[in-house]
Amino acid sequence: MQVQKVLVNGERLKNTIEAFADFGRTEKGGVTRLSLSEQDVLARNYFRSCCEELGMSVRIDDLGNMYGTYAGTEDAPPVVIGSHLDTVKKGGRFDGVLGVIAGLEVVRTLADHGIQPRLPVTVMNFTNEEGARFEPSMMASGVLSGKFDKEEMLKKRDTEGTAFGEALEAGGYAGEAGNRIKEAAAYLELHIEQGPVLEREKLDIGLVDCVVGMACYEVEVTGESDHAGTTPMDMRRDALFAAADLITELRRKLGVLDPELVYTMGRMNVLPNIHTVIPNKVIFTVEARHKNMDIVREVEEIINSLPEELLECTVSKRKLWGRETVWFDESICAKVEEAAVALGYSHKKMASGAGHDAQFVAGFLPSAMIFVPSVNGKSHCEEELTSYGDCEKGVNVVLETVLSLAL
Amino acid sequence: MQVQKVLVNGERLKNTIEAFADFGRTEKGGVTRLSLSEQDVLARNYFRSCCEELGMSVRIDDLGNMYGTYAGTEDAPPVVIGSHLDTVKKGGRFDGVLGVIAGLEVVRTLADHGIQPRLPVTVMNFTNEEGARFEPSMMASGVLSGKFDKEEMLKKRDTEGTAFGEALEAGGYAGEAGNRIKEAAAYLELHIEQGPVLEREKLDIGLVDCVVGMACYEVEVTGESDHAGTTPMDMRRDALFAAADLITELRRKLGVLDPELVYTMGRMNVLPNIHTVIPNKVIFTVEARHKNMDIVREVEEIINSLPEELLECTVSKRKLWGRETVWFDESICAKVEEAAVALGYSHKKMASGAGHDAQFVAGFLPSAMIFVPSVNGKSHCEEELTSYGDCEKGVNVVLETVLSLAL
Repeated sequence: MQVQKVLVNGERLKNTIEAFADFGRTEKGGVTRLSLSEQDVLARNYFRSCCEELGMSVRIDDLGNMYGTYAGTEDAPPVVIGSHLDTVKKGGRFDGVLGVIAGLEVVRTLADHGIQPRLPVTVMNFTNEEGARFEPSMMASGVLSGKFDKEEMLKKRDTEGTAFGEALEAGGYAGEAGNRIKEAAAYLELHIEQGPVLEREKLDIGLVDCVVGMACYEVEVTGESDHAGTTPMDMRRDALFAAADLITELRRKLGVLDPELVYTMGRMNVLPNIHTVIPNKVIFTVEARHKNMDIVREVEEIINSLPEELLECTVSKRKLWGRETVWFDESICAKVEEAAVALGYSHKKMASGAGHDAQFVAGFLPSAMIFVPSVNGKSHCEEELTSYGDCEKGVNVVLETVLSLAL
Repeated sequence: MQVQKVLVNGERLKNTIEAFADFGRTEKGGVTRLSLSEQDVLARNYFRSCCEELGMSVRIDDLGNMYGTYAGTEDAPPVVIGSHLDTVKKGGRFDGVLGVIAGLEVVRTLADHGIQPRLPVTVMNFTNEEGARFEPSMMASGVLSGKFDKEEMLKKRDTEGTAFGEALEAGGYAGEAGNRIKEAAAYLELHIEQGPVLEREKLDIGLVDCVVGMACYEVEVTGESDHAGTTPMDMRRDALFAAADLITELRRKLGVLDPELVYTMGRMNVLPNIHTVIPNKVIFTVEARHKNMDIVREVEEIINSLPEELLECTVSKRKLWGRETVWFDESICAKVEEAAVALGYSHKKMASGAGHDAQFVAGFLPSAMIFVPSVNGKSHCEEELTSYGDCEKGVNVVLETVLSLAL
């Protein structure tokens, strides 16, 4: 006899997505809900009330992270489902919030069916994942994991001069350090892909096994500013020509390293940037990401072996930052995969190219992430879109995983 | 019997250069003397007093152009020596002012030797050549030549909101339209080269036979902004990669056209200019200059034949402006050459890559320019330098030419 699968309520999920989108909804259907802003505090209050309606206990830690816990029959470390409610300015309706709503919908489904799990199920909202109001991003998970210093973070100010600590107090979300999560059976984060791969490959689910490592460099080319009309070509030290050659060389060498490598020169400034003056300085960034750190290190070697002089210009390079690949917990990833298989959803293993709270959480809790497709790969903009049907499949994978872990 | 040449007074010339440099001298030995600023008005007043001491009559036209005239024995069109007293911000001690001082020193030398010329000798100061306070540059000579509209120019405002017409009135230099120069036997402008050619070739004098034609285009590359971490390389529309390829192609094609062609991509803006975002737009300028307009037109063809699509990005180009080569008067140029030869100075014919009042004046007066070497080719900066000895040789060429034309 085939057992009927327990599935989430798609209509309720859709309504919840839109209910949260009302907190900061923009004219073009996006959301502006900066961390601890009025709209974010309203969304937090709403999340709290949703949890309380389900009989969940709600705790707040000293960084404003919220934990709504649905009791299990055992007083043991919970299965945690989490992500973040904050958005960038003019962001979308899915990035972050989907992972929190997933938790709510999982608990609602358990309640629908009168299922009391053995392990507690905790739904989490991490404070200030985006870093759009207070830098850096992933601030609160960074403190929990010991990557960032709490006192330093509390002093970070937004552009209007408000400190993060002040915003926590003002919003009523400065809780207790004792409430921080320290143990869990698993941490599951459902997120939109923010890239075009699942859509292109017509897949339902991305089984995320890692957050890729990266390195980011700044290359500075120094030439000489001379008059564009009076300086013969053979007497120039044109920093833009040298920079263009460096970019060509980087593309040629990075382009053959590995098909999964991504590399970007996203920022480039030309000085003095006057059409009648030969550029004397060009500064550009090169960042590259790959799950295999050996390849990231090859990228670094290529950058560091750029010539120190080119077209009479001097070239210097310095590393701005880098991070190692974070691998998620193999056994939790296996559970997620089993869930996707059991549900009959098409899927593939993939790396996350973007950063997420899960990459810090993975340092102290066994973690895994699940991706759902992003239409046109867009995120952090009002056009950000994941179909309700894809969202539902993602939440069903979370539910199925929770059922396998917590019952 | 060899006649002893009449030569200028080098010591006096040096002192005059430094006296003018006191009007707006900067800490690092440059000059800030924006058009019709307090310092420029003081320099103008000083120039007027220098003229009057020599018994010259001084007229001012409706654009503030100054004419100090040393009478000839005939009431005929004068030989004019002119340039401009204004500078850019933190400019040098030589650009412009040297051509005015040259006129003063020529008249002083005539006076020293009791030489009354047959033709009047007029020393001119053009208003606002640099365009550093009121755009465009060469404003007053542009109006005199009919290229610019006077009423429009009078309304041009500086960054503080003062109109050009108001500044003329405030400085006491709003003169009579009837005083504008309309006829002359010749217009001679001595100027620093603002390029490195004379210095490199160890030459004293540049015999300038033209101001080169040019064309300036803006190229706009439009791609798509996606996440630098989540977008595979084969799904990108990276506007910077496309722009780098276009620049490479332009350099390859322009590089083989003609050794005298100069081309510059001086301004380049990358958007959104964030290291973690693939650039969706790059806008850069391409300007090229050559005395042979056929070559300039070949450049334009090369720019216009750039692909309209590249690396999934769209490419558009538009002409910002252009100008035809201005050829100086052959007979006046010949006189200048004879003067350089007579003085035994090393020299070469050359084009001016930069713009000068003379290029507009050439439209209604028979004109020629003389260049003296710029150390390291520098101008429009505090390091701008021409040795006093080189200045002296240049003024001697002007004197010798005046003697040949005006006696």
